[in-house]
Amino acid sequence: MRESPIAIQTTSPLTFDAAVARAREAIAKEGMGVLTEIDVAATLKKKLDVDRPPYLILGACHPPSAHRALSAVPEVGTLLPCNVTVSVEDGVTVVRAMDPGAVMAVLDSPALAEVGTEIAAKLRRVVEACKG
Amino acid sequence: MRESPIAIQTTSPLTFDAAVARAREAIAKEGMGVLTEIDVAATLKKKLDVDRPPYLILGACHPPSAHRALSAVPEVGTLLPCNVTVSVEDGVTVVRAMDPGAVMAVLDSPALAEVGTEIAAKLRRVVEACKG
Repeated sequence: MRESPIAIQTTSPLTFDAAVARAREAIAKEGMGVLTEIDVAATLKKKLDVDRPPYLILGACHPPSAHRALSAVPEVGTLLPCNVTVSVEDGVTVVRAMDPGAVMAVLDSPALAEVGTEIAAKLRRVVEACKG
Repeated sequence: MRESPIAIQTTSPLTFDAAVARAREAIAKEGMGVLTEIDVAATLKKKLDVDRPPYLILGACHPPSAHRALSAVPEVGTLLPCNVTVSVEDGVTVVRAMDPGAVMAVLDSPALAEVGTEIAAKLRRVVEACKG
């Protein structure tokens, strides 16, 4: 799978449902809560009557990090929570997380960079946990 | 207010509650729905027992654009929905939206760029509507 400048990602041998369960476990293990959930396929079916393969967005939040990040750079809230997505693409399960590095690169804030590095490590472990 | 590379933003003479109401109206007027809501202050009070000023994240979605964007670049879901935030900072009401331009710049996709431009215009009108 090609690299993405905005996402940490992997394909997974797990079924969609198993990958979702694994992602939830890994998010909890990192001390993060799931604040939002969007069933993209169901939402677009309802709004547009289009059929799309499964795509779930889990909005994960590590409260101490969110507190630090918002205190350092208030506009970072426009990118919170940290999304972890599970989807099926060409029949293959895919797990992704937003890559805070892409955002850190454009925001010149040492305090935010530190939080971003920690959160990136957490999100990377979540994605890795879904590899199999 | 200084410019941000990740957010479209303005201060507002409105109270927090009035700005939230105005933002909701403007989001609806753009044909967008609110899929998620996070009361950041309440969440961090509950999780960390810290007192923060009001900060609300509204996750706005324009279904046809989400469908096009996800079809062009699946990993864009790590940044959806498009957040509109209303906060109080140093006693001043602030309204922001994520700036899709920052993301478009790093993703080399003409199809996504087109959607991004349309969504950026919508989000800019939402933020402008909260100016007073």
